[in-house]
Amino acid sequence: MIPFGSRLHAAIADRGPLCVGIDPHAGLLSDWGLGDDVAGLETFALEVVEAIAPYVSVVKPQSAFFERFGSRGIAVLERVIAQSRAAGALVLLDVKRGDIGSTSQAYADAYLDPTSPLASDAITVSPFLGFGSLDPIVETARTHGAGLFVLALTSNKEGPEVQHARVDGVAGGGTVAGLMLDHLRRLNAEASPLGSFGAVVGATIGSTDEDLAFNGPVLAPGFGAQGGTIADVRRLFGAAAAVLPSSSRDVLRLQDPDVMRDFVVRTNDELRS
Amino acid sequence: MIPFGSRLHAAIADRGPLCVGIDPHAGLLSDWGLGDDVAGLETFALEVVEAIAPYVSVVKPQSAFFERFGSRGIAVLERVIAQSRAAGALVLLDVKRGDIGSTSQAYADAYLDPTSPLASDAITVSPFLGFGSLDPIVETARTHGAGLFVLALTSNKEGPEVQHARVDGVAGGGTVAGLMLDHLRRLNAEASPLGSFGAVVGATIGSTDEDLAFNGPVLAPGFGAQGGTIADVRRLFGAAAAVLPSSSRDVLRLQDPDVMRDFVVRTNDELRS
Repeated sequence: MIPFGSRLHAAIADRGPLCVGIDPHAGLLSDWGLGDDVAGLETFALEVVEAIAPYVSVVKPQSAFFERFGSRGIAVLERVIAQSRAAGALVLLDVKRGDIGSTSQAYADAYLDPTSPLASDAITVSPFLGFGSLDPIVETARTHGAGLFVLALTSNKEGPEVQHARVDGVAGGGTVAGLMLDHLRRLNAEASPLGSFGAVVGATIGSTDEDLAFNGPVLAPGFGAQGGTIADVRRLFGAAAAVLPSSSRDVLRLQDPDVMRDFVVRTNDELRS
Repeated sequence: MIPFGSRLHAAIADRGPLCVGIDPHAGLLSDWGLGDDVAGLETFALEVVEAIAPYVSVVKPQSAFFERFGSRGIAVLERVIAQSRAAGALVLLDVKRGDIGSTSQAYADAYLDPTSPLASDAITVSPFLGFGSLDPIVETARTHGAGLFVLALTSNKEGPEVQHARVDGVAGGGTVAGLMLDHLRRLNAEASPLGSFGAVVGATIGSTDEDLAFNGPVLAPGFGAQGGTIADVRRLFGAAAAVLPSSSRDVLRLQDPDVMRDFVVRTNDELRS
């Protein structure tokens, strides 16, 4: 199995780095003239996939908006994942899971094992229980050539109380965010051209003293409508091995499939120029 | 709507504090002579619910073990939740979700809105994005009389690197775990007899300097087979307003419905004596 980092590196070279978030919240369904129900969810999500999945390297469905509708919403998510992959996009499922032991293993089985109905190329994970609590997910990712994006340094205003906290016993008084990047640097040390273990770092954090050279990809939410510019991405993430600027609203509000497609193709061109 | 804290207080008085985790991992399904598939999951989970939900105050299904089977596993989870509540147990769904803004709201809708197929009495949440990132979930819980259990001080060996990290600007150099307890103390300040906003604190942490008097319930995993004793629970959590010692393996390995029922009734008697 080709590692996720290698597949992502090739996909970015082929299609560009833009990651499109599929975030079917109630307001968007309403803007599209759809009901806030499973039928509306399905129409919305599959139309977006059909319009953009053949043109972008990474599609990022937000699981929460499917979980809202219980098992029937998850059945739609299964189709979103399968159809996105069939169209040649890598699927980064945004689930922010994290637990310990056999429960972490169960999440790995759910989202990274190719035999699962929700099998994705990569997922987001949350390290509040310590980075090592994610070990079963890391090992499963290695086995199946999948990737992870670990929450590290997000741009929401409430994040610093945890992510900037100082870790005992680290030289220089490192932060929680810095420690997560250190763990990722270790996991990616031998990888070439790109590691499979990424970090979530907000595109609108302004600036950071953290070392983003960890040989893995950065998922950078907040690009576009939420304020992050191409200049921000270049300035903030110059040291990173690869960056996926992630945008959702900018694309989804366009509604018309041709306009959505043109927008993602043009944005990828701008990001690569 | 009666607040979750009040409902939990009454349920503990009526049935005792034991929380039974429903953790149908592959090994347990095999021990029960069941297949590692949706049919095995359903048989296992519904037999456990039928045996113990009429006798315990809180049933805690672990979502990961249902997510493993995609939408069909989630359909089983919907039945587990509904049948547990119909039997008079409160359902604490262990999902450890956490996100920001409209995504946090979507998780709240998924698990705390009574119209959702997965509506539960309470859920576990993860504060890596900062406690305030959970605000939409807190507000939705208040609206619907639901509860939350926020990860704070877990007993897994990897937890301290995040949970013991020192928060800048807090007098005395408070920890991340302590800050989470402070946030909970604020949310529960006016509640009587018990707040609705709880913490997850491992039954096997040994000792702690954190102040557990935050007027909310403590979920204490690790009780029983994982090593936590009744003496540990009394010593560690003497200051807490209410404690839910949580056990899974001890109960589930018994298999026979009558034996499971007798075990949970006897354990509740011991915990109350």
